[in-house]
Amino acid sequence: MKHYAKPLARLIGELARLPGIGNKSAQRLAFHILSLPEAEALALSEAIAEAKAGMRYCSVCGNLTDLDPCRVCSDPSRDGGTVCVVESPRDVSAMERIKEYRGQYHVLHGAISPMDGIGPEEINLKSLIIRLQENDVREVILATNPNIEGEATAMYIARLVKPSGIKVTRIAHGIPVGGDLEYTDEVTLSMAMEGRREL
Amino acid sequence: MKHYAKPLARLIGELARLPGIGNKSAQRLAFHILSLPEAEALALSEAIAEAKAGMRYCSVCGNLTDLDPCRVCSDPSRDGGTVCVVESPRDVSAMERIKEYRGQYHVLHGAISPMDGIGPEEINLKSLIIRLQENDVREVILATNPNIEGEATAMYIARLVKPSGIKVTRIAHGIPVGGDLEYTDEVTLSMAMEGRREL
Repeated sequence: MKHYAKPLARLIGELARLPGIGNKSAQRLAFHILSLPEAEALALSEAIAEAKAGMRYCSVCGNLTDLDPCRVCSDPSRDGGTVCVVESPRDVSAMERIKEYRGQYHVLHGAISPMDGIGPEEINLKSLIIRLQENDVREVILATNPNIEGEATAMYIARLVKPSGIKVTRIAHGIPVGGDLEYTDEVTLSMAMEGRREL
Repeated sequence: MKHYAKPLARLIGELARLPGIGNKSAQRLAFHILSLPEAEALALSEAIAEAKAGMRYCSVCGNLTDLDPCRVCSDPSRDGGTVCVVESPRDVSAMERIKEYRGQYHVLHGAISPMDGIGPEEINLKSLIIRLQENDVREVILATNPNIEGEATAMYIARLVKPSGIKVTRIAHGIPVGGDLEYTDEVTLSMAMEGRREL
């Protein structure tokens, strides 16, 4: 990047640090941004600064929010008796998109992964336990990801919560809708068989 | 995006306007930016604003630059007798990467495209003609893209410049290095045959 002028090189460098943006994409984006009218380029710059300044983590559920407690936690029409445990704020968005779930969330900000030195203390778990003790929760839905870390985290939370008598459920694993049996990996297929339901 | 808080929705909206960034990628980037330490997020925001404020177009060649005239135009070690005509500042970067060309550039900021209503007046062509009249230029290398618009632009400039006696050349078309004859399209292959050279 020796032949780039300094402000341009800096912009490319900053863009290239974003996930999924390599050096080539960063160059393309930087040239695009510089070709934009001033107002549009500044709108992007300000959106980043304002989002960073205006968004924080909800003190109740840990989700990203501009209000504290967040809109879900403070919505009286939502069922406080059900708490869906997810790994990240993006998972909350995914859940909200299905427009069916009307309970609360709890965001762990990670999953237990001893290999990476992430134990139960490193994720937002303690506040979940306190929340379950202080509120009248009937069901905890474990919606961590269906990988090793997510399963381990779900198992750990299930063992922790079950003795208190709260119902603990895990979202179903199986063949995705529109998927193909032939191309489904064995683990998923075995999960799908295991989770079969009577019609 | 109804369930997103406003600053987050705005950031996603701004990111999704970038080329090659769809709504999904924009969401992923936005969540990533919000998970960054404050200083890193602001570094990106500032890089955009500063690049936009600090970069302008060179009054001589039309390339993006932080100085006017740009580093290439003001470099006495570069050959002012050769002008390479390209469509965009990105093409200058691509050329500079090969580290072989030591002449000057001229950036058209587009190509002639009657279908899109872009005629010779809409691109940075007038300043090239003036430049050729006022300076001692021996060769104009036409390095516009090898597509219909780029070819038409090259043809147009060639006809305009040739009567003045300046040598006009066009970069070679052919099979890319590492490419495969079998998978080369017919137009490229026919160009490669046409442009064959004696060994």
